[in-house]
Amino acid sequence: MTDLASAYLIEKEPYYKEVDDEIALYEAAYAARLPMMVKGPTGCGKSRFIEYMAWRLKRPLISVACNEDMTASDLVGRFLLDKDGTKWQDGPLTLAARIGAICYLDEVVEARQDTTVVIHPLTDHRRTLPLDKKGELVHAHPDFQLVISYNPGYQSSMKDLKQSTKQRFGALDFNYPERDLEIEIVAHESGVSTDVAGKLVSIAERSRNLKGHGLDEGLSTRMLIYAGALIQKGIAPITACSVALVRPITDDPDMRDALDAAVTTFF
Amino acid sequence: MTDLASAYLIEKEPYYKEVDDEIALYEAAYAARLPMMVKGPTGCGKSRFIEYMAWRLKRPLISVACNEDMTASDLVGRFLLDKDGTKWQDGPLTLAARIGAICYLDEVVEARQDTTVVIHPLTDHRRTLPLDKKGELVHAHPDFQLVISYNPGYQSSMKDLKQSTKQRFGALDFNYPERDLEIEIVAHESGVSTDVAGKLVSIAERSRNLKGHGLDEGLSTRMLIYAGALIQKGIAPITACSVALVRPITDDPDMRDALDAAVTTFF
Amino acid sequence: MTDLASAYLIEKEPYYKEVDDEIALYEAAYAARLPMMVKGPTGCGKSRFIEYMAWRLKRPLISVACNEDMTASDLVGRFLLDKDGTKWQDGPLTLAARIGAICYLDEVVEARQDTTVVIHPLTDHRRTLPLDKKGELVHAHPDFQLVISYNPGYQSSMKDLKQSTKQRFGALDFNYPERDLEIEIVAHESGVSTDVAGKLVSIAERSRNLKGHGLDEGLSTRMLIYAGALIQKGIAPITACSVALVRPITDDPDMRDALDAAVTTFF
Amino acid sequence: MTDLASAYLIEKEPYYKEVDDEIALYEAAYAARLPMMVKGPTGCGKSRFIEYMAWRLKRPLISVACNEDMTASDLVGRFLLDKDGTKWQDGPLTLAARIGAICYLDEVVEARQDTTVVIHPLTDHRRTLPLDKKGELVHAHPDFQLVISYNPGYQSSMKDLKQSTKQRFGALDFNYPERDLEIEIVAHESGVSTDVAGKLVSIAERSRNLKGHGLDEGLSTRMLIYAGALIQKGIAPITACSVALVRPITDDPDMRDALDAAVTTFF
Amino acid sequence: MTDLASAYLIEKEPYYKEVDDEIALYEAAYAARLPMMVKGPTGCGKSRFIEYMAWRLKRPLISVACNEDMTASDLVGRFLLDKDGTKWQDGPLTLAARIGAICYLDEVVEARQDTTVVIHPLTDHRRTLPLDKKGELVHAHPDFQLVISYNPGYQSSMKDLKQSTKQRFGALDFNYPERDLEIEIVAHESGVSTDVAGKLVSIAERSRNLKGHGLDEGLSTRMLIYAGALIQKGIAPITACSVALVRPITDDPDMRDALDAAVTTFF
Amino acid sequence: MTDLASAYLIEKEPYYKEVDDEIALYEAAYAARLPMMVKGPTGCGKSRFIEYMAWRLKRPLISVACNEDMTASDLVGRFLLDKDGTKWQDGPLTLAARIGAICYLDEVVEARQDTTVVIHPLTDHRRTLPLDKKGELVHAHPDFQLVISYNPGYQSSMKDLKQSTKQRFGALDFNYPERDLEIEIVAHESGVSTDVAGKLVSIAERSRNLKGHGLDEGLSTRMLIYAGALIQKGIAPITACSVALVRPITDDPDMRDALDAAVTTFF
Repeated sequence: MTDLASAYLIEKEPYYKEVDDEIALYEAAYAARLPMMVKGPTGCGKSRFIEYMAWRLKRPLISVACNEDMTASDLVGRFLLDKDGTKWQDGPLTLAARIGAICYLDEVVEARQDTTVVIHPLTDHRRTLPLDKKGELVHAHPDFQLVISYNPGYQSSMKDLKQSTKQRFGALDFNYPERDLEIEIVAHESGVSTDVAGKLVSIAERSRNLKGHGLDEGLSTRMLIYAGALIQKGIAPITACSVALVRPITDDPDMRDALDAAVTTFF
Repeated sequence: MTDLASAYLIEKEPYYKEVDDEIALYEAAYAARLPMMVKGPTGCGKSRFIEYMAWRLKRPLISVACNEDMTASDLVGRFLLDKDGTKWQDGPLTLAARIGAICYLDEVVEARQDTTVVIHPLTDHRRTLPLDKKGELVHAHPDFQLVISYNPGYQSSMKDLKQSTKQRFGALDFNYPERDLEIEIVAHESGVSTDVAGKLVSIAERSRNLKGHGLDEGLSTRMLIYAGALIQKGIAPITACSVALVRPITDDPDMRDALDAAVTTFF
Repeated sequence: MTDLASAYLIEKEPYYKEVDDEIALYEAAYAARLPMMVKGPTGCGKSRFIEYMAWRLKRPLISVACNEDMTASDLVGRFLLDKDGTKWQDGPLTLAARIGAICYLDEVVEARQDTTVVIHPLTDHRRTLPLDKKGELVHAHPDFQLVISYNPGYQSSMKDLKQSTKQRFGALDFNYPERDLEIEIVAHESGVSTDVAGKLVSIAERSRNLKGHGLDEGLSTRMLIYAGALIQKGIAPITACSVALVRPITDDPDMRDALDAAVTTFF
Repeated sequence: MTDLASAYLIEKEPYYKEVDDEIALYEAAYAARLPMMVKGPTGCGKSRFIEYMAWRLKRPLISVACNEDMTASDLVGRFLLDKDGTKWQDGPLTLAARIGAICYLDEVVEARQDTTVVIHPLTDHRRTLPLDKKGELVHAHPDFQLVISYNPGYQSSMKDLKQSTKQRFGALDFNYPERDLEIEIVAHESGVSTDVAGKLVSIAERSRNLKGHGLDEGLSTRMLIYAGALIQKGIAPITACSVALVRPITDDPDMRDALDAAVTTFF
Repeated sequence: MTDLASAYLIEKEPYYKEVDDEIALYEAAYAARLPMMVKGPTGCGKSRFIEYMAWRLKRPLISVACNEDMTASDLVGRFLLDKDGTKWQDGPLTLAARIGAICYLDEVVEARQDTTVVIHPLTDHRRTLPLDKKGELVHAHPDFQLVISYNPGYQSSMKDLKQSTKQRFGALDFNYPERDLEIEIVAHESGVSTDVAGKLVSIAERSRNLKGHGLDEGLSTRMLIYAGALIQKGIAPITACSVALVRPITDDPDMRDALDAAVTTFF
Repeated sequence: MTDLASAYLIEKEPYYKEVDDEIALYEAAYAARLPMMVKGPTGCGKSRFIEYMAWRLKRPLISVACNEDMTASDLVGRFLLDKDGTKWQDGPLTLAARIGAICYLDEVVEARQDTTVVIHPLTDHRRTLPLDKKGELVHAHPDFQLVISYNPGYQSSMKDLKQSTKQRFGALDFNYPERDLEIEIVAHESGVSTDVAGKLVSIAERSRNLKGHGLDEGLSTRMLIYAGALIQKGIAPITACSVALVRPITDDPDMRDALDAAVTTFF
């Protein structure tokens, strides 16, 4: 493995608790080099899972946060000016294809269409990436795999992946962890007791029932960890929940009341 | 043949099973240097066919995945800065015209209009490509041929080829292969038995009947191969179908139930 | 005549059959250096006629395929970077004005407005082209003439030439040739017998009656030549017509049936 | 006067026939350096009048054909790259302000707003032009004057000059010349007899009555001169009128019949 | 004071007649370095007032005519290429902040939002301007003040300053001067007698009553001065009013009649 | 601490009066390095609070005024041309991540989506910032914290933070200070007596009741300070209130009357 590749290795085992059989499934998909899509709500652990799998498979991981102003060049690379003229600079996708990394395109639906089309030849039998501007055809390293994430919750029909893109991926569904597992995660990551973590998870469960009834999304595991971290720093639990859970998620007075009531029920 | 041209030759015979008389037809079209358009749904083998024909005709193949942010310069070429000033860099279309390659513009409808207009003088009796920015008129190599693909399934009337473009091409229609042929392909490409492949094809056939009744497209041959590959890696068939067939194609609960039912019918 | 100019001369007489008195008319217009507009449907021979007249008048011909992403700079020229700084590169319009060429802007309606306004001072008594970016006023060569083409069939009122542009041109109307002439052209260009060519023209005539009743345009002479070429390569006429005439022009099943019926009527 | 200025002098007296008292009015406006706006339909002689006045006042004339893709930099100037770094290149407006030319912005309504706002400080008591990108404040030469043209006929309310722009200009209205004067102009410019010129003017008068009843604009004096020029080259008058008057101005069959009828009435 | 600063000083006292107590108010605002907004119709003297105050306060004045294509970089500055690489070039706002000038952003509502947001840190207690592209934080010179103008008459709700911008400014309302003062100004600036000036002001008063009844704005003081200037050059008053007052302001025949009637009433 | 970092330190204690328990809360959030969001109306002291906390925590503060034309590169950095080629220039976000500053993105909702997505990996367990264009992965300094502000008052549903962004932040709500505290602040900052300051606060309280009934926002503390400053410079209170409070906030005559009445009630 080259130096460049090892710079993207995950050195320390990321904290990850398996929810279902997703580890074995991903290993099979990686063995077949099947491009994968991980679906689920924000903050439920999709990015953490991919990090964990990269560590487990001992593969470098190159992540890209997609956005609607990103161009194909941001992924593929571009020419930069040098004292001897222009020099090609590989983008993260090209780099991943060359060194055999797992390339993780986070929230790929946000990207413009050219970004999503550019991955097509990497996701079928060709496993190639044409660098049209450079006149080079990159053949992907045998260890290269492409992974994309997307949140089906807030895709409008205007902004969705094309069928010709979707059909190039296997898919894993993610959701918030089961109660006991989520308590264990919140306690481990924030340092609070499992008792406090349990109360936080109970609040989250109430909020998730409000999804679609005034809330776009329920409280994520990540937010519970934030609330726990404030409690660990000595902030009163009700204040910590207000700062980390209620105020960020909504400005609607009725929703705030409903969430505040959930907080005071448990603390 | 130059070194540059031979770099784009297909060295190994691509796996391709003839569906109808498309090979003879394409050979006649190539002999007349008639520009060709291949139509059909995603994942039915259009790209594979062109690869196969390039191998069979011993012509270099230059493919471009079109997208709506692609400019005419991405096809034709541009000036790059060098230590001695600017240097012209041929784009893939210009390169193909010079070396006598088959130039394959995949999903050409996605491209902006300037991309589609730029091919006009290459597709009539002139067979020329004016490089306006460079002040050069490229006369296409006698072996050059232009091929475009497009998927009539999801073209809206807003995004369609202009008549003045369409009338420059002969057209071949593609569709999913006949059952027996598709079973043979899925078995060959994924390594599963023809029995398993047959079940996968049966699931696909059901999904294709749902096209227009909640699904934008049916399951493609490529997806069946992906499902087969997971089964070959030891994943249980029902799980493999869920990951490779059902979850990627739709997030609609009813559609998922219908597809899951099809899976459990056969496995 | 300079070397540059002679590079754009048409060396071989293009095959062209006069339809009406357009040759004498064009010669008079050229003698008066009247800017000309050629109107007509796609594939009816407009480009070929201009090529023929350039050959006949022994004038260099510089053609530009217009498109909506073309900028005024693409026509007029731009500065390029050189080892000694920037260097001006004439665009095709400027080059034509300098060397006394016929400049042919194909499908000018497709261009953005700046492209059409930029030609104004070349089309009135001034016959000049200001290169604002360079600070030069080019006086057109006495032999220079501007010709534009446009297809009135599919101009919406949104995308039309401005009156202040239209009024700067004389106009010639083109249409598909008369039956006998079209048969002669198809036979000559594709190599088929006049009997086969006659059948192809009959099919085209039927299709042209469908224009506006489901077809945007009828079959063009160019398409008939393509069908003839496939027949000459040994393809069965019905298959050749399907590939070269029916499938490219429409994906509508009813229209395809109507056109297939026309094909089987004559073959 | 500098060499640069004299390069923009009109050397030969342009052919111009006064319609009203516009020459004396313009001279007074120029004496007061009042910015002027000339209004009128296309092809009625606005540009010719400004050319004539520049010749008469012995002032250099710098004309710019405005368009909606023109930027403020196209008028004001920009930095160009040189072997010693960047070098400022004056745009036509800056050049005119420096050398004391008449700057004529043709069809200024077509320009983007930044182009029209950039002229504000040149059109009030300040008579300055700030070159923000260069950090220079140009004080206009005492002989500098700004003139704009516009065609009130086809301005929509969406595309009009702002009041804060309009109120900076005096205005002269132009229209087609009176019959006798127009006959004299057409005869002089095209070389036809006053008898033929009279018939052409009669056709134009009929067309101008159709304005707003199917025609966007009537036939302009310039078009009559074009028709005359074709007649002078030996084309039959009815054909010449068809090519130079009827076909360019409309594709509507009824309008063409009406105009053809007018032609055959007089020829 | 640096050389650069003194280049922007107003050397000669601008002609300005106080309307109300705006001079003392502005002096107090400047003493508190309160950012100011001057509101009022076009041509009523806003720019002249700021010029006068800059002269009175002996402060350099840097004016910028805002427009919707202006970017934040046009105000703040940008890197230019030099023979030794890139060199930073201050924009007018940065320059004003450095040298302690009054920076006057004329018609700021026309600018894009980034232009208006960029001024925020200069208009609160911070009085800083971050040059993000250069990595520098400019602390405004103690004498620096920001002034913006805007015309409330034609702001649509779509194009208005944000509250977070408005609340950073004190505001002065301007309008056309009282009759006697306006007569004095018109006579002084154009050279006509107070009798003639009085007639011009009477015409203006009538036009201002038509505002909102067919006219977007009434005649401005500036237009009256233009009319006076033409009369001084020997043009008959009725013609001068037609050229300088009526024709520029409207193309509507009824409005023109109404204004012409006002002119003939007084001349 | 590096020189670069110390250049962004707040040297003098900013004047700040605690409203609630926000100081302790922020300290706990900073101790946990929790990304924070401060919400509240314009001019209520959000920016001042962050400045105060940066001073208190002895951390450098890097502020960015967000706007809709800002690109991800404006935050992250870009390549600049140097005499030896291109050189990377860190943007403010990257700089803050490297030196361990508090990075304050003011009015982040105004920014384009790519700006908000670019902060994602800095706001979860990764605390990294990928510089895709440079091929570098920046690990945030342990002292780095991200703070964003936003004004929930005028967010339309079209322009709001995405849930996946919101859920990455704890939130503090701000509002105008309580009456006594606001009087103290206005008196301290403007120099007026507490009696005058009390009257100004009374006017503000009335205006805040008009919010949503004709006013988009009530008068901010900042505006009261401006009015006080004018009074301190000798302007009559009624005039000072008109200039600093009434005229900037609205052009609606009825609203102006209502606010003027409030002013005359107290002065």
